[in-house]
Amino acid sequence: MSRIAYVNGAYVPHRQACVHIEDRGYQFADGIYEVWAVQNGKLIDREGHFTRMDRSLSELQITKPMSHASLMPVLHEIVRKNRVKDGLVYLQITRGVSPRDHPFPKNVRPSIVITAKSLNAQKAEQFAGKGVAVATMRDERWARCDIKSVSLLPNILAKQAAKEKGAYEAWMVDQTGMVTEGSSSNAWIITKDGVLVTRNLSTEILGGITRERVLMLAAERQLTVKERAFSVAEAKEAREAFMTSSINLVTPIIRIDEKAVADGKPGPMACALRKDYLQSAAT
Amino acid sequence: MSRIAYVNGAYVPHRQACVHIEDRGYQFADGIYEVWAVQNGKLIDREGHFTRMDRSLSELQITKPMSHASLMPVLHEIVRKNRVKDGLVYLQITRGVSPRDHPFPKNVRPSIVITAKSLNAQKAEQFAGKGVAVATMRDERWARCDIKSVSLLPNILAKQAAKEKGAYEAWMVDQTGMVTEGSSSNAWIITKDGVLVTRNLSTEILGGITRERVLMLAAERQLTVKERAFSVAEAKEAREAFMTSSINLVTPIIRIDEKAVADGKPGPMACALRKDYLQSAAT
Repeated sequence: MSRIAYVNGAYVPHRQACVHIEDRGYQFADGIYEVWAVQNGKLIDREGHFTRMDRSLSELQITKPMSHASLMPVLHEIVRKNRVKDGLVYLQITRGVSPRDHPFPKNVRPSIVITAKSLNAQKAEQFAGKGVAVATMRDERWARCDIKSVSLLPNILAKQAAKEKGAYEAWMVDQTGMVTEGSSSNAWIITKDGVLVTRNLSTEILGGITRERVLMLAAERQLTVKERAFSVAEAKEAREAFMTSSINLVTPIIRIDEKAVADGKPGPMACALRKDYLQSAAT
Repeated sequence: MSRIAYVNGAYVPHRQACVHIEDRGYQFADGIYEVWAVQNGKLIDREGHFTRMDRSLSELQITKPMSHASLMPVLHEIVRKNRVKDGLVYLQITRGVSPRDHPFPKNVRPSIVITAKSLNAQKAEQFAGKGVAVATMRDERWARCDIKSVSLLPNILAKQAAKEKGAYEAWMVDQTGMVTEGSSSNAWIITKDGVLVTRNLSTEILGGITRERVLMLAAERQLTVKERAFSVAEAKEAREAFMTSSINLVTPIIRIDEKAVADGKPGPMACALRKDYLQSAAT
């Protein structure tokens, strides 16, 4: 089966899907994106991603190319056309095509690209079941990490550096030694005292949609939760650690740099929250 | 006349020139660029831009898609095909097309795009002759501004903010109150004592090719030059201020925020250095 992409109003074969070389997304990283997890053909947290999408567009003063009501059938159609049962939907909106010049162009139509792809749900569970390692490194990103922009060069460099260190994810560390977040995920620990900690929202981290859902699930479990910064040292002494993202859902972290987290096995609460997530998303 | 672009080995009509939606330049800002000024059909500082291009590619571990020897005829051909006498050549290289995933893909062929466009040299002289205003603002960029990457979202936001304040360029200010550089130019002042000052090279600024040439011209004029940081306050009390870039060459700055620089007219040394630049580039 050949994949289908949605590009500026048309469904096109993925292989031929292209954008103009003067799309500001290509020349300036002048755009935003969202990724929805798809489970059993259903988009998870559809509204939450819409809300964040609107916020990112608004922060960059990019005109919304379509209403949620118009976008919805496209998202569902791209899932259907690509026969995605479990996987993800990727949406990217850029300021549009305009002769290269830094200031915002006038009367430009934003570009929109939507793709979908299948992921093997069983393999994902096996992967998460083993837990992953993270490598800590300096957070080199810009000052507005709360905007989900495609200006992701620092993120991919961090992810690559982590990979080269044998880790799956990078945990980025600010100038005061505190973890901000992962290169494409939010960072969590359960302290020695059993407190669930994740960094408070600010311009320094992305407000994860999965993060929001996990906070809700933690409340349902009546866990003690603190939204605050934590240091690398505190994380290394934690009872558990895990990451959240639309793609990795809740994934246990078993090693931070060279230090095993607790006994080096996926933490029971991280595993429980992943189960909660899958269950709550399915309903 | 319709414009022609060079895209991955082919000369194509500019209007139809496109790249794949999964080009990492589009999804991750995973690429670099260079801009050459063209004067009288000649590329200015051809070698300097090549050297910087190589450095940017190397820092990002992107494979060089073509040797300088192979690139050279393409640059000249794109100038010829677009009949550019005075203007610029834009070159962009990205890591290439690969299914979206943060770490570097293996065995991917880098993408290369080259365009050229004419600029009105007479108008450019008139523009520079009047001088421009700059607006200062917080430098929100990432920690590796020495790489000429397309991860330019902070830069365009700064340029737009400057425009909305009635200025032509943004001067970005670090956490210690010192000017780093413009959103697409290097920043210079001539102090009350007649010392030419521009920020020293580091990961915080781009090593401008025009900056290099102007340093050379200043040496020829036996000016006292200091490569060091300067504050907004020092700049506002300066005898002269100007900016340099491949597009704006040497352009006098007559206002910084609400403060006129000296008598609010283009500084004589900035004007002299611009003349020097045009002359030296022509030879």
